Amino acid sequence: MTPRPSSRFMECLQYAAHKHRDQRRKDPAQTPYVNHVINVSTILAVEACIEDEAVLMAAILHDVVEDTDATFADLEALFGADVCDLVREVTDDKSLEKQERKRLQIANAAKTSPRAKLIKLADKLDNLRDLLVNTPQGWTEERRELYFVWAKQVVDNLRGTNTNLELKLDEIFRQRGLL
Amino acid sequence: MTPRPSSRFMECLQYAAHKHRDQRRKDPAQTPYVNHVINVSTILAVEACIEDEAVLMAAILHDVVEDTDATFADLEALFGADVCDLVREVTDDKSLEKQERKRLQIANAAKTSPRAKLIKLADKLDNLRDLLVNTPQGWTEERRELYFVWAKQVVDNLRGTNTNLELKLDEIFRQRGLL
Repeated sequence: MTPRPSSRFMECLQYAAHKHRDQRRKDPAQTPYVNHVINVSTILAVEACIEDEAVLMAAILHDVVEDTDATFADLEALFGADVCDLVREVTDDKSLEKQERKRLQIANAAKTSPRAKLIKLADKLDNLRDLLVNTPQGWTEERRELYFVWAKQVVDNLRGTNTNLELKLDEIFRQRGLL
Repeated sequence: MTPRPSSRFMECLQYAAHKHRDQRRKDPAQTPYVNHVINVSTILAVEACIEDEAVLMAAILHDVVEDTDATFADLEALFGADVCDLVREVTDDKSLEKQERKRLQIANAAKTSPRAKLIKLADKLDNLRDLLVNTPQGWTEERRELYFVWAKQVVDNLRGTNTNLELKLDEIFRQRGLL
């Protein structure tokens, strides 16, 4: 059997596209938010050579609980416990303040499972690629610089997971004078 | 091997999402255009049980030459001749006037290959599902009604391709008093 997207992968993609339909990225072009989650899953498939369908699905769904009305119960019912648990591992607790959430991302990174670490690395890689070419609307240059510094602290606690992704992140940190 | 999206499927999804990034559907909510091509491919995988990766990829790419700066040469280089030829079969010639393009869709439907017919059926099904719940911005009720009538003429020339899709289209035509 040649590789092909399964029905459940397509359902998960359609679900994420629908849930994020009103959300845009912070770039000046207001790119649809779903492009980001597609990029994260594509980075994993193409650049990290991941063939684990649940990881590719969780990448597509990685912001759907954080940013839309979707719940973990919805994800478990629709896509199973394995995919749901991966999404749970990469979801920030939005009841906490933003600075606390950012601190926890650094603190919790090392405790994450290897499969969830992959998603976190790919997420950071796509965000930093965006940030290299765009300053988000309403951001100062300083806030942009601080994001690179913070992202490196998270990535430093995710290391030893995937050589390709870590090399590509390091190229960016080097370009920004952080390595 | 369990089914999983291949690298080339993910690259094609990312490519379409990027090319359509500035385009929105005509619904009042301005849904990202990429949601439509995701819906068409999902309809084929889930509702028509299609496992042919090239068909699912061509569904993702079916509007990319018609609506963006992508060319058939780009698609052939990136995704191969089979996928490119399928997209060519479902692409309207934008150098023609709109009424002529609509006439040609009816006239050419029966001559299309069975795999391209699947994409055309799923495309019509997603468009009509949208149209059942939304009147596109700037459309009169009469224009909406004429779209259902025209779509039925196209679908009538695509019949004998996939029972499930045709049954679902017929439900809609029945609901609109056209069958």
